[in-house]
Amino acid sequence: MSAQVQAQVAVIMGSTSDWDTMSHACAVLEELQIPYEKQVVSAHRTPDLMFEFAEQAAERGLKVIIAGAGGAAHLPGMVASKTVLPVIGVPVKSAALNGLDSLLSIVQMPGGIPVATVAIGKAGAINAGLLAAQMIGAFDPEVASRVQERRDRIRDQVLDSSAELGEIK
Amino acid sequence: MSAQVQAQVAVIMGSTSDWDTMSHACAVLEELQIPYEKQVVSAHRTPDLMFEFAEQAAERGLKVIIAGAGGAAHLPGMVASKTVLPVIGVPVKSAALNGLDSLLSIVQMPGGIPVATVAIGKAGAINAGLLAAQMIGAFDPEVASRVQERRDRIRDQVLDSSAELGEIK
Amino acid sequence: MSAQVQAQVAVIMGSTSDWDTMSHACAVLEELQIPYEKQVVSAHRTPDLMFEFAEQAAERGLKVIIAGAGGAAHLPGMVASKTVLPVIGVPVKSAALNGLDSLLSIVQMPGGIPVATVAIGKAGAINAGLLAAQMIGAFDPEVASRVQERRDRIRDQVLDSSAELGEIK
Amino acid sequence: MSAQVQAQVAVIMGSTSDWDTMSHACAVLEELQIPYEKQVVSAHRTPDLMFEFAEQAAERGLKVIIAGAGGAAHLPGMVASKTVLPVIGVPVKSAALNGLDSLLSIVQMPGGIPVATVAIGKAGAINAGLLAAQMIGAFDPEVASRVQERRDRIRDQVLDSSAELGEIK
Amino acid sequence: MSAQVQAQVAVIMGSTSDWDTMSHACAVLEELQIPYEKQVVSAHRTPDLMFEFAEQAAERGLKVIIAGAGGAAHLPGMVASKTVLPVIGVPVKSAALNGLDSLLSIVQMPGGIPVATVAIGKAGAINAGLLAAQMIGAFDPEVASRVQERRDRIRDQVLDSSAELGEIK
Amino acid sequence: MSAQVQAQVAVIMGSTSDWDTMSHACAVLEELQIPYEKQVVSAHRTPDLMFEFAEQAAERGLKVIIAGAGGAAHLPGMVASKTVLPVIGVPVKSAALNGLDSLLSIVQMPGGIPVATVAIGKAGAINAGLLAAQMIGAFDPEVASRVQERRDRIRDQVLDSSAELGEIK
Amino acid sequence: MSAQVQAQVAVIMGSTSDWDTMSHACAVLEELQIPYEKQVVSAHRTPDLMFEFAEQAAERGLKVIIAGAGGAAHLPGMVASKTVLPVIGVPVKSAALNGLDSLLSIVQMPGGIPVATVAIGKAGAINAGLLAAQMIGAFDPEVASRVQERRDRIRDQVLDSSAELGEIK
Amino acid sequence: MSAQVQAQVAVIMGSTSDWDTMSHACAVLEELQIPYEKQVVSAHRTPDLMFEFAEQAAERGLKVIIAGAGGAAHLPGMVASKTVLPVIGVPVKSAALNGLDSLLSIVQMPGGIPVATVAIGKAGAINAGLLAAQMIGAFDPEVASRVQERRDRIRDQVLDSSAELGEIK
Repeated sequence: MSAQVQAQVAVIMGSTSDWDTMSHACAVLEELQIPYEKQVVSAHRTPDLMFEFAEQAAERGLKVIIAGAGGAAHLPGMVASKTVLPVIGVPVKSAALNGLDSLLSIVQMPGGIPVATVAIGKAGAINAGLLAAQMIGAFDPEVASRVQERRDRIRDQVLDSSAELGEIK
Repeated sequence: MSAQVQAQVAVIMGSTSDWDTMSHACAVLEELQIPYEKQVVSAHRTPDLMFEFAEQAAERGLKVIIAGAGGAAHLPGMVASKTVLPVIGVPVKSAALNGLDSLLSIVQMPGGIPVATVAIGKAGAINAGLLAAQMIGAFDPEVASRVQERRDRIRDQVLDSSAELGEIK
Repeated sequence: MSAQVQAQVAVIMGSTSDWDTMSHACAVLEELQIPYEKQVVSAHRTPDLMFEFAEQAAERGLKVIIAGAGGAAHLPGMVASKTVLPVIGVPVKSAALNGLDSLLSIVQMPGGIPVATVAIGKAGAINAGLLAAQMIGAFDPEVASRVQERRDRIRDQVLDSSAELGEIK
Repeated sequence: MSAQVQAQVAVIMGSTSDWDTMSHACAVLEELQIPYEKQVVSAHRTPDLMFEFAEQAAERGLKVIIAGAGGAAHLPGMVASKTVLPVIGVPVKSAALNGLDSLLSIVQMPGGIPVATVAIGKAGAINAGLLAAQMIGAFDPEVASRVQERRDRIRDQVLDSSAELGEIK
Repeated sequence: MSAQVQAQVAVIMGSTSDWDTMSHACAVLEELQIPYEKQVVSAHRTPDLMFEFAEQAAERGLKVIIAGAGGAAHLPGMVASKTVLPVIGVPVKSAALNGLDSLLSIVQMPGGIPVATVAIGKAGAINAGLLAAQMIGAFDPEVASRVQERRDRIRDQVLDSSAELGEIK
Repeated sequence: MSAQVQAQVAVIMGSTSDWDTMSHACAVLEELQIPYEKQVVSAHRTPDLMFEFAEQAAERGLKVIIAGAGGAAHLPGMVASKTVLPVIGVPVKSAALNGLDSLLSIVQMPGGIPVATVAIGKAGAINAGLLAAQMIGAFDPEVASRVQERRDRIRDQVLDSSAELGEIK
Repeated sequence: MSAQVQAQVAVIMGSTSDWDTMSHACAVLEELQIPYEKQVVSAHRTPDLMFEFAEQAAERGLKVIIAGAGGAAHLPGMVASKTVLPVIGVPVKSAALNGLDSLLSIVQMPGGIPVATVAIGKAGAINAGLLAAQMIGAFDPEVASRVQERRDRIRDQVLDSSAELGEIK
Repeated sequence: MSAQVQAQVAVIMGSTSDWDTMSHACAVLEELQIPYEKQVVSAHRTPDLMFEFAEQAAERGLKVIIAGAGGAAHLPGMVASKTVLPVIGVPVKSAALNGLDSLLSIVQMPGGIPVATVAIGKAGAINAGLLAAQMIGAFDPEVASRVQERRDRIRDQVLDSSAELGEIK
């Protein structure tokens, strides 16, 4: 995605160790031709950068923010508290509790500040990319079409895989 | 909200017993002047209605669907599988497991079909209304302003409540 | 199992990645000489196929459906909502939460639409095959006898293994 | 249900305190005109009665056994170990852990002896009755029709309730 | 505690609804004669106030911060990210998950920014007050003595209650 | 342990796959010179053998039974229902849920039939051996002495290991 | 139980608030005519008393110790570390986590120091009394007989209750 | 750290197997130049040593105690019951339950005796070292400066890593 195009989605994560997970969100955005940017922003280690990022996100032209974090995952909720753009939270699988802590820290937001939470780990990151695309697609029919085409392709793959399964003895 | 206005958000729920929770989503949409409609649609008891609803949602002009359900909560994910509109899932508190089953059944979607999941119960329903507004607000500055104004009002209430707390002995 | 014989059991699964687990259900059906068919049917990626499959299952002569799925596992419950055949749900072990999400998504069905849920993973798949056989065996004494013979063989193996254990020092 | 008719389903429970839950299974069987019998059989307090009951169940003409129990709920699994009839397990809500212990004690059976597990509490008991009916209905079209009619009635109730919801302001 | 005395401990909480819990921390500080202040500071609804509070805490002469919050409880961790004063986090019991979400959101901080977490609810709030006193007491023998005296009193109460128990028949 | 000596403890397990865990119980009994026997007894696959074993245990001279099982672990509780000897239950680590299911299935026994439950896995098996020895030791001072000597040895090892740790840089 | 008789069992608990639960253990011991004593001993508030109690327990003639505690329940394990008498731990239901914390704090003892853990709450307290009796009964046939008689009475009650259930319409 | 310097922090652990985790606490203390000592002290295997250690800690000049333990982790809480120094508890990841048992055993202390609990495993051990430094830093500006410098360094590393991430395609 060339830098000249205005990014519509920002993919942020608490640490480079989250890239293994969050790269799947970026791959989906690439595939659907949604201009995006990516950045490490840590709620706990770079709190000022986080606030600055969140405050400027809307005026910079972003439409959706995807934020991935693990453990006591405060990044999605804190970014959400500083912007009225929709924020999608991806719970990254954690070392001890397999991401249950990440999930609860992201999804259980108090009334007032929502975070659109997706599944723990890779499936969640893929779905974060798709959800961002669907939010944009609700107002941009071309993006909606691309999401629909992706679904059609995957549906056909499932139908094919079923045929293969039938031949296993 | 008069029927003549095109609804932008649909609030659906698996049963009338979910209305206690889901009414909070509707109240937020009222407050923010987002036209919406509400309906009981059950994944398990009215599966055909659910599919029909989901298939027609985009062409009927809806922009976002909010779906609340409890227990083995399949409504948000199944609606999401039949539309490329963004679907927000509200885990309703369940009788035995306090909504942990509802939460996992909604949030742990496989890669391909996202559901934007919010908190269990009332806080989640409020946030579903706000998240829908923020998704629309990303493309409609007036709605974004109303969300921001609501936040400013609540911030001021917190500041006032802090003053009151200071006087408690 | 040759194609000419009318299948009594259908084994369906959300993805080919579930085959590692679900193959154990098929192996038991083979062993007990219950005619069966197998297919990939995804609740979220092929929802129309799923509904079509479920609607036609009874008239096609099936007696029991075994459905395996993981994560927010909606396949067993949604198939159950479209047929009055008994549906057995196998919670496939999931990446982050070890199948606890799969289990709750399958077992916690609301009153009205039951799913006969078995254990997470391989043991559950084996038992799904046996449970299907036992349902048929309740009306077909020959099948019941084969289930009983399988149990007798396994009981004898346990007795033998106990003898071996006694010799370990 | 008069005593002269051969019971097709037995509803057993570990204690009279489980009747509040298990009565819902019996009500469904009544409604669907499935002859049934009911009995207190405790795995831990009447183990010999339990074995005797399970051993004789098939020859007495029963087709399905529904067993409800709470906590370290051993009744469904132990009955299942002594009969090749299908056994449906209902996890009764427990005092401390809300039935999570009951659920895991019933559903996590080792490969070899299945228990068809349904949801915790009242919803599970209703579904146990329905599941028994569906097992019988797979071989008795009249019973299958009654299950279908019940579903149709409930579907219509949902559609009506949705109309009422639309009128709430 | 009169306002003229420099507060050594600040007790902050996300909402006035947390006062029922957090008042127990204040009561302990009163009892031990530790000067303190109390304030509502919400991570999500007053993020700027939170950062301002945290940034100024050390220079204002505070020695310890006690922060209580529930659900996706970000207040203790975010305050901790903006000050090098020790921060004690009190997980307030939440509506759906009984404070397990609060606990994990507070305690599972990533390496770099610690939060000293205590038990869920009232016991935790009491202990937050005591822990603050013990931190100060490590450098102020008089405070340490008061903590020790409080323990001695409570030990004697336990010994007395044991005598009473012995007389129950 | 030669066969001529009357066994005081029986170590039983649901499957030979539990031997990896349960061998640790036997090793402790060897070490403490408590005569024991070991056997595979499966609640679900050899229910009659289980009842026979339990019924005869006391009259055969056994003083304590140690039973290990995993998943829906019914062996300890069912044996306990058929004997008034004390039964120690060892929750074996299970494939999907790491032994949490085993633990709850064993420990949450209803009032009336106790099982003395120890920790999940190897630590629990070691402690089962020790607990059996301590039960016997309460009435046999020589056994109590051997348990005390084992503790003293281990205490000394800890003290030594602490010295080694001090030298790590 | 008059004071002149040598107590065989000590029932200790962390607080008088545990008496509601632990009284059930005492009632069983009364019923089975096992001489016992009861005392409040707190691991955290009276640690020295706890050690003194544990150290002297065996020489005072006690055969079994029953210890109930809630939350971070250290009493059973710490008493166990200071005596080679068998210690039975009763997890008392806790305010926030319903006794799951109490259970894990008691049962998950490291290899070396066992605690015989029973169910959470009232059922566990009843079973603690019975388990103590069974431990003594393994060496005292008269006590074993009384336990057996109690079981026979309860079995008969279950059989009677089943008859009553049969008459409910 | 040479032995002549008065240690301000003691790092204790239940077993040498905890060193892999607890070494991270020591590394942080080294880095921040806080004099410390380290020792194996087991609550269950060396209870007398534990009490002696805790009783003498304050008079020996220690300011903070860091205690790591796993499973039914009683070390931090029991040490805390015998000293008024602040005690930091590190839940070590356990074999079966991934440290959830360790966490609950440490954090859920009853009102009266606090333990400052940090995250499970390595992150928690790092944070234990930092928290000890911050407690000291509240009274020693030089230590506070070193903590702040460490944070600044890490903040800069995050900013650098973000730049690197931007270059990944």
